[in-house]
Amino acid sequence: MSKSVPQTAHWDLVGIVAELRGAREQWRQKRNRDLAAHEFPSREIVREVITQLRGALFPLRLGPADLNRDGEDFYVGNALDAALNALVGQVKLELTSRQRNEEKPVEGDVLSWQAREIVTSFGKSLPRLRAVLDTDVEAAYRGDPAARSVDEVLLCYPGVLALINHRLAHELYWLGVPLIARIIAELAHSETGIDIHPGATIGGHFFIDHGTGVVIGETAQIGEHVRVYQAVTLGAKRFETEADGALQKGQARHPIVEDEVVIYAGATILGRVTIGKGSTIGGNVWLTRSVPPGSQVTQARSQQEANGVST
Amino acid sequence: MSKSVPQTAHWDLVGIVAELRGAREQWRQKRNRDLAAHEFPSREIVREVITQLRGALFPLRLGPADLNRDGEDFYVGNALDAALNALVGQVKLELTSRQRNEEKPVEGDVLSWQAREIVTSFGKSLPRLRAVLDTDVEAAYRGDPAARSVDEVLLCYPGVLALINHRLAHELYWLGVPLIARIIAELAHSETGIDIHPGATIGGHFFIDHGTGVVIGETAQIGEHVRVYQAVTLGAKRFETEADGALQKGQARHPIVEDEVVIYAGATILGRVTIGKGSTIGGNVWLTRSVPPGSQVTQARSQQEANGVST
Amino acid sequence: MSKSVPQTAHWDLVGIVAELRGAREQWRQKRNRDLAAHEFPSREIVREVITQLRGALFPLRLGPADLNRDGEDFYVGNALDAALNALVGQVKLELTSRQRNEEKPVEGDVLSWQAREIVTSFGKSLPRLRAVLDTDVEAAYRGDPAARSVDEVLLCYPGVLALINHRLAHELYWLGVPLIARIIAELAHSETGIDIHPGATIGGHFFIDHGTGVVIGETAQIGEHVRVYQAVTLGAKRFETEADGALQKGQARHPIVEDEVVIYAGATILGRVTIGKGSTIGGNVWLTRSVPPGSQVTQARSQQEANGVST
Amino acid sequence: MSKSVPQTAHWDLVGIVAELRGAREQWRQKRNRDLAAHEFPSREIVREVITQLRGALFPLRLGPADLNRDGEDFYVGNALDAALNALVGQVKLELTSRQRNEEKPVEGDVLSWQAREIVTSFGKSLPRLRAVLDTDVEAAYRGDPAARSVDEVLLCYPGVLALINHRLAHELYWLGVPLIARIIAELAHSETGIDIHPGATIGGHFFIDHGTGVVIGETAQIGEHVRVYQAVTLGAKRFETEADGALQKGQARHPIVEDEVVIYAGATILGRVTIGKGSTIGGNVWLTRSVPPGSQVTQARSQQEANGVST
Amino acid sequence: MSKSVPQTAHWDLVGIVAELRGAREQWRQKRNRDLAAHEFPSREIVREVITQLRGALFPLRLGPADLNRDGEDFYVGNALDAALNALVGQVKLELTSRQRNEEKPVEGDVLSWQAREIVTSFGKSLPRLRAVLDTDVEAAYRGDPAARSVDEVLLCYPGVLALINHRLAHELYWLGVPLIARIIAELAHSETGIDIHPGATIGGHFFIDHGTGVVIGETAQIGEHVRVYQAVTLGAKRFETEADGALQKGQARHPIVEDEVVIYAGATILGRVTIGKGSTIGGNVWLTRSVPPGSQVTQARSQQEANGVST
Amino acid sequence: MSKSVPQTAHWDLVGIVAELRGAREQWRQKRNRDLAAHEFPSREIVREVITQLRGALFPLRLGPADLNRDGEDFYVGNALDAALNALVGQVKLELTSRQRNEEKPVEGDVLSWQAREIVTSFGKSLPRLRAVLDTDVEAAYRGDPAARSVDEVLLCYPGVLALINHRLAHELYWLGVPLIARIIAELAHSETGIDIHPGATIGGHFFIDHGTGVVIGETAQIGEHVRVYQAVTLGAKRFETEADGALQKGQARHPIVEDEVVIYAGATILGRVTIGKGSTIGGNVWLTRSVPPGSQVTQARSQQEANGVST
Repeated sequence: MSKSVPQTAHWDLVGIVAELRGAREQWRQKRNRDLAAHEFPSREIVREVITQLRGALFPLRLGPADLNRDGEDFYVGNALDAALNALVGQVKLELTSRQRNEEKPVEGDVLSWQAREIVTSFGKSLPRLRAVLDTDVEAAYRGDPAARSVDEVLLCYPGVLALINHRLAHELYWLGVPLIARIIAELAHSETGIDIHPGATIGGHFFIDHGTGVVIGETAQIGEHVRVYQAVTLGAKRFETEADGALQKGQARHPIVEDEVVIYAGATILGRVTIGKGSTIGGNVWLTRSVPPGSQVTQARSQQEANGVST
Repeated sequence: MSKSVPQTAHWDLVGIVAELRGAREQWRQKRNRDLAAHEFPSREIVREVITQLRGALFPLRLGPADLNRDGEDFYVGNALDAALNALVGQVKLELTSRQRNEEKPVEGDVLSWQAREIVTSFGKSLPRLRAVLDTDVEAAYRGDPAARSVDEVLLCYPGVLALINHRLAHELYWLGVPLIARIIAELAHSETGIDIHPGATIGGHFFIDHGTGVVIGETAQIGEHVRVYQAVTLGAKRFETEADGALQKGQARHPIVEDEVVIYAGATILGRVTIGKGSTIGGNVWLTRSVPPGSQVTQARSQQEANGVST
Repeated sequence: MSKSVPQTAHWDLVGIVAELRGAREQWRQKRNRDLAAHEFPSREIVREVITQLRGALFPLRLGPADLNRDGEDFYVGNALDAALNALVGQVKLELTSRQRNEEKPVEGDVLSWQAREIVTSFGKSLPRLRAVLDTDVEAAYRGDPAARSVDEVLLCYPGVLALINHRLAHELYWLGVPLIARIIAELAHSETGIDIHPGATIGGHFFIDHGTGVVIGETAQIGEHVRVYQAVTLGAKRFETEADGALQKGQARHPIVEDEVVIYAGATILGRVTIGKGSTIGGNVWLTRSVPPGSQVTQARSQQEANGVST
Repeated sequence: MSKSVPQTAHWDLVGIVAELRGAREQWRQKRNRDLAAHEFPSREIVREVITQLRGALFPLRLGPADLNRDGEDFYVGNALDAALNALVGQVKLELTSRQRNEEKPVEGDVLSWQAREIVTSFGKSLPRLRAVLDTDVEAAYRGDPAARSVDEVLLCYPGVLALINHRLAHELYWLGVPLIARIIAELAHSETGIDIHPGATIGGHFFIDHGTGVVIGETAQIGEHVRVYQAVTLGAKRFETEADGALQKGQARHPIVEDEVVIYAGATILGRVTIGKGSTIGGNVWLTRSVPPGSQVTQARSQQEANGVST
Repeated sequence: MSKSVPQTAHWDLVGIVAELRGAREQWRQKRNRDLAAHEFPSREIVREVITQLRGALFPLRLGPADLNRDGEDFYVGNALDAALNALVGQVKLELTSRQRNEEKPVEGDVLSWQAREIVTSFGKSLPRLRAVLDTDVEAAYRGDPAARSVDEVLLCYPGVLALINHRLAHELYWLGVPLIARIIAELAHSETGIDIHPGATIGGHFFIDHGTGVVIGETAQIGEHVRVYQAVTLGAKRFETEADGALQKGQARHPIVEDEVVIYAGATILGRVTIGKGSTIGGNVWLTRSVPPGSQVTQARSQQEANGVST
Repeated sequence: MSKSVPQTAHWDLVGIVAELRGAREQWRQKRNRDLAAHEFPSREIVREVITQLRGALFPLRLGPADLNRDGEDFYVGNALDAALNALVGQVKLELTSRQRNEEKPVEGDVLSWQAREIVTSFGKSLPRLRAVLDTDVEAAYRGDPAARSVDEVLLCYPGVLALINHRLAHELYWLGVPLIARIIAELAHSETGIDIHPGATIGGHFFIDHGTGVVIGETAQIGEHVRVYQAVTLGAKRFETEADGALQKGQARHPIVEDEVVIYAGATILGRVTIGKGSTIGGNVWLTRSVPPGSQVTQARSQQEANGVST
């Protein structure tokens, strides 16, 4: 029997490769694209950059297991050096890819210079970001009765990990590299189930508990001391699609959440509405209009009562 | 002091090992199983296969960071070769494990031949799958105002990653290796929070935004140009459990969603119902009956209004 | 041109490092902390411990791909030995870090002895945990019409992976190392989207289907033969924040779910309420009060009917 | 400038690949070979097998750094299981490749059976090999004034590492897999500079000091308690090449070294000569004839004296 | 006791770092060097390039263990693509570092162009090098009575591995990147103990047996069908050092070995002498003058006889 | 057929494990040893320490490929911190293992303190060692006509790599951890074929060319500006073995080589002899007596002449 079964594969490798090439060419013609190479930032390299920046920001808790005080600054400097150098390469890739189809592409040297300027600014912002993140850690510790120590918060809470990524991504978003920023956001999304668009503006002392399913849109603005639970959406209010199916891009279309607001699990707030300072939005609330400061929004009492119970 | 604390462990390793063996034997007797070896497909190997297939399908964007056009076909052929050869081993493991308890098990050579046939068919399908995935990428770009380029979509959007896995898994599901298909689906579930059963049938131009918490059941059927947001469930309608707690398996029990339907975040559609072409299902809607084409289903206005607000 | 662009970085590495040190010192002064070293359990080491314990508990399915019956006990013993030895180090780190600020810190030798006692007890519990996990696997197989075999359940179902972690974490939680327990829980949360606090008490034959978004709080108590679907919350009922924003810690504040209860997707049960034996809680139900045994709780019929449909 | 330099490579990848294929085909035709696949044992896999066998033979010294007595047997069993299973695959590859060009090739099942028989015999020999290696370790400790402990000898001495490989390789050589045996020997050669053909027969209590440049030929026979220093050759005596350049294979052509012989650095002994029991061969001696027991062979005194010295 | 032993290190890390910086600065001032960065080819990257080129040259024997005929060309193309792209970066580094201290450094774009030209030429040479290496493999098979197959030769013989590296390195040496060439040579030296300077010119059908300790100098020229054994030196004849200790560089100072010469183990041939065609140089011979074709050079008979033997 | 061949292994794993345990116990009884755990320094960890120390000593050339001047000190500090912390653990292991069998073993805390003292002294010595190594690099550059730059010397020359290891090992040897020192020496021996015992004392400006086969004994003393070629031995002069085969340990028994001596390839110098300042020892010379300063020692002219040549 074994002789009639050839040891090499049946499949026509050459044929599949040719057909896949055909599929790629069709796509490229259709989209009028002509990539010469893998010209985009790499998810893997960005992941490594973020791992090193997390360590540089919180060396004794997110850095290597055997680090001690003596070596702290050296570790921080070395991790930063590696991270920023790797980042400058990724930034240049994004700048290059973005102006590929332009008529007068910028020269490579200028792009290199721009990339360095961006990373220099980003590097300068890190101490400030660390200080803000400290307020987030403190907010988590104070906001969760199950938290035993600030260390537990930093080591365990997905909301804190997502915020580290967000605050780094948001900085890069405003410095002009939104694709890298988005990759950083999606790394946190994959790790934590928390999806914060890097464009969102978020004040200090922000706490996301549990976090799975949280979605915060690109133009959302969140004040100080805000608390948010799992599956909360701060989204855009959709209108029916236009005739050609295209959607307008770039407009302010997500909520403004003022200081000291609490939004419980599963609440959905849509559109450019304002949640006034100190308001509380109850679990599963569906809200598409603004509410004044100090509001207590809950689901209609009638609904809860209306739960049909038969025993 | 240190002399009274022995350096070796206290724990009775031999005892724990023996008890664990006892627990395994109890399980095996109870389930009438007699495994001789690790005879199942391996999550790690399947993960590696998928990583290589993703690269083979989209070489310049999901392949290695230093790839360029010149080397594209060689990379694709080499990645395919490695992926398909590894896959044939996993397929044979699944075929073997499935017929283990049968009275007349098929001979190993026949299983090898079957495994090769399955992988050959799968390989042939790849160019077609790439073409469909291109429509999904395009749909994502057109469907999200925050998307800046098709490249961002492919590099960042969890919905697209989940669909790559799904289209590969669905092909393998129909070719007769549902366990491998399920592993592929769960790899995407873990990575993206999107849980699509490999049995689900999904047309082109499908777009899942944000995605966390999406569940699409085994017998769901989805048409062309459908758009779905986070936390949407296309599930089965549950009835009370039977006396013995057993559930019937294999029946069509999930929704049919026709072309050009949009389903907003958190909507739940249960049972073998049909959502007519071009309908829009609003956020958080709970739906257990069919709706005709062109329907606009929203939560009862009364509910929204009923949000209790006190300031 | 190239001469005017220096090859070294612009950024002031020394300056950033100094500022980051300043930010750390500010935090440490404020929190009155003086860490000498990375004195916490390490997420990476705990992850490795869990990977080995999973293999030791289910060697032929979660162990290495080439394992067979002959080598099973050796593999189990070796994996256990490595896992328990690594764990004892992590336990000692947690014990050390916890009593760091106490006036009369326990001596290192005593902590070592305590750590060994904890790990010894933990090791002894493993055969019992395996037996309980077997009931969970069986419950999943019986509870999901899409499940084809118990093997598929163990290899693929995120709910089962989350429960393996939970049952290990819960044991460690009660043995006095809640931080390690929490890290184990968060590893599962990140992998599966299922967030079970290690303090939660869960009976046998527990099944979580799909799972993304499930949250089970610290003081929840769940009986035997309970079934739960995605996005179910067993949470605390929140009250308004106190004047100083502090929340009371440690009180029983999550639901008691009695035997044979089924809770469908998206249901939210809050507060120290009791769901009576054999009850069924419908999808998306919002429940903040106890229900007697045998209850069928669904959303108010009026709501479903109230879905606004226009075609 | 940058526009005139294309970013993709100049080189004609397709052309080089085609020419390399041509070169391979020319070789295969010339040698009348038709390989279907990589059908040889793999240096990397054999290296891994040896690493695990070294650990299984000397667990507390060549095994993992964190091993202790409790886990010793489990580690040994697990390492053996992995090593022997990997080895059986390599043995089958060698058996297959060897009979490829034969007219009546043995069937695959028979080769599998043969491979298992070989590995079973090999496994049985391991305790005996360990006991012999213990005599080698002891000989090294006794033979080198610089050795401080038997542990230092086992951890550091290249001669001991080379002998571990040799004794394993020699067993496999006699069991009928000389290619794997040779790979094992060359792994030691690369690591230590000591080149012992796996066919060489070596008694217990053998000690090679320093070792670099030692060559021991295929048919050499070495007794008990022999000591050898760096750059010693036990080789074949070469004759002029025949007309067609071919050399006769397989004949006994290397020295017999009887018990308790010492051979100092750089000595060269060629041909099927016998060095009688208890002899000492001095440094740099060139010897092509037998010497009786108890001989003291040194370089001609005249030579040493003859060193020209001018100051 | 434990309280008096601080957990952090004693050592003055800051002080050591400062002193090491001082040592570096002293060196740089003395050598008038001002490195801005790690501007040299990297041993690790070159090692990876060579690993891939070995696989591309001999895919079914030095390529991956699971390769088969179907995937051969794809593997070769992909490995070449990766190797040549990585090499072009290393070549540019060498070109840059070499002209660092020149007054008019070449511009970066020109260096990039030069690097591509070099790698293009190198790529073109690979099929020719493979053909020559095939003659070396054949020579080894024919030259060693212990060789059982050409496959054993390619998988096991250090002489063949050293020649693969040498033939690649020699090509790069002549293309103008002697530092990379030297790194390649030293990788083989470390692996095999065979030290061939990349400048040496070596004809086809070259065989090095055993090989440890072989040294072949920069300006050596070796004809076709030459055979060499372990510890053979083809070196320069040293003269006393000059007053300032400097040695002249670049002159032809190593032997010319004509076709069909055999040089036995330990022979030392020094200076720009010529070993005539078909000569045989005996073991341990020390030779510093030319010999005509067909010579048989052995150690003086008197010496051998002179071995002092006492029994 | 396949049914009659069981899929699990034949071999009696349990039996082999038991016999190996027996062999170990026999050894332990015989040597009166009772190891509780792997209590020795680990070759792998020491290798990692050395890799980091090499980088810390020569950051821009042996450090990471992407390092630049800005990050140099941070890299150095971080690498040192990791290396010294890892080393302190290895030192404690050696101290512990050494006093295991003593009647009054030192307490663990004292050993920890001793280990830190040793590593602190070692750390302090590094700037001095770097300065000496710079003289070695310079000597290599000046001593080899084939060397094109000091960078080539540091990147490529095995003699330099061996000296880096030696100077580190020698320091540790004198600080009281000869086993770790020996491991470091053997790592270089394996990598370069150069075997320098860590006890040997070697002055600055030392150059070893080619290096394979060089052996320098424990009590050798080498002055400044010495040059040595491949296969040179500075060894002990052996006497006949004593009745019980034991050799005296620790005595001065290797040569003293004064400043500015050159020793050509293959020369063997044995015993506690002195090679006077500025002497030259020719290739293959065999020397067992002292020579005065300025000596030119060559092989007896008669020997060279005596090469038998027949053509």
